[in-house]
Amino acid sequence: MSSDCIFCAIVAGTGPADIVYTDEHIVGFLDIRPITVGHTLLVPRTHHTGLADLPAETGARLFAAGQRVAAAAKAALDADGINLALNDGKSAFQTVFHTHLHVVPRHSGDKLQFAKGLLTRRGGDRKSIAAALREELS
Amino acid sequence: MSSDCIFCAIVAGTGPADIVYTDEHIVGFLDIRPITVGHTLLVPRTHHTGLADLPAETGARLFAAGQRVAAAAKAALDADGINLALNDGKSAFQTVFHTHLHVVPRHSGDKLQFAKGLLTRRGGDRKSIAAALREELS
Ligand SMILES: [Zn+2]
Ligand SMILES: [Zn+2]
Repeated sequence: MSSDCIFCAIVAGTGPADIVYTDEHIVGFLDIRPITVGHTLLVPRTHHTGLADLPAETGARLFAAGQRVAAAAKAALDADGINLALNDGKSAFQTVFHTHLHVVPRHSGDKLQFAKGLLTRRGGDRKSIAAALREELS
Repeated sequence: MSSDCIFCAIVAGTGPADIVYTDEHIVGFLDIRPITVGHTLLVPRTHHTGLADLPAETGARLFAAGQRVAAAAKAALDADGINLALNDGKSAFQTVFHTHLHVVPRHSGDKLQFAKGLLTRRGGDRKSIAAALREELS
């Protein structure tokens, strides 16, 4: 636990939150700045800044909780789509440095703006990029 | 395997792709319409349409591969941030119905547009929304 972390405070029960989900390892609560109704954040009970210091098994539990909350949002809120997103690092829009998974319920026609990002296409030299990543992963 | 699925074809080696990552369960390749350099898609070797029919253990492996490719993108492409995203359903911008995890390398100042979506704030009655989700999950 990090003493100045608002998500650690929510996990500890000392910070206010609308709790959606709890299990032994993960806590879920409504985002205080939702981009859609039911926008939920899932956090490990343990403090990890981002992907680099998140144990793989905790990441797996985070994703599993995301699947469960996604199914619940479809059933309870009539969502017909879900975005799961994890923003790692300031340049990726991370604002709270206790890593967290966004579960964003979607409805046809909700016109959520982040579609626009997906229309910005940038290239690069695909062969050399793929080779550099493969090399790093090997 | 679905016979008309382009991602199943890539997994089978019959469809063209710049392969980035492979393990026993997951294959990763560059997105043909990248939103940043190194934008990678990770897919299970087995065909699942979305979150609802994705076995939890496969989801866990998908996320674990995402963490590995994220680390590789930071090392190989000097990324200082990563977005992981899974779009489930047409309303959530899913376009290929073989579920996949986006790994989007980010750099400070890259001005990727999907930040805009995160500034659209919508509310709803938080107490009743959280209660409906908790009820569904209980
Ligand atoms: Zn924390
Ligand atoms: Zn497929």
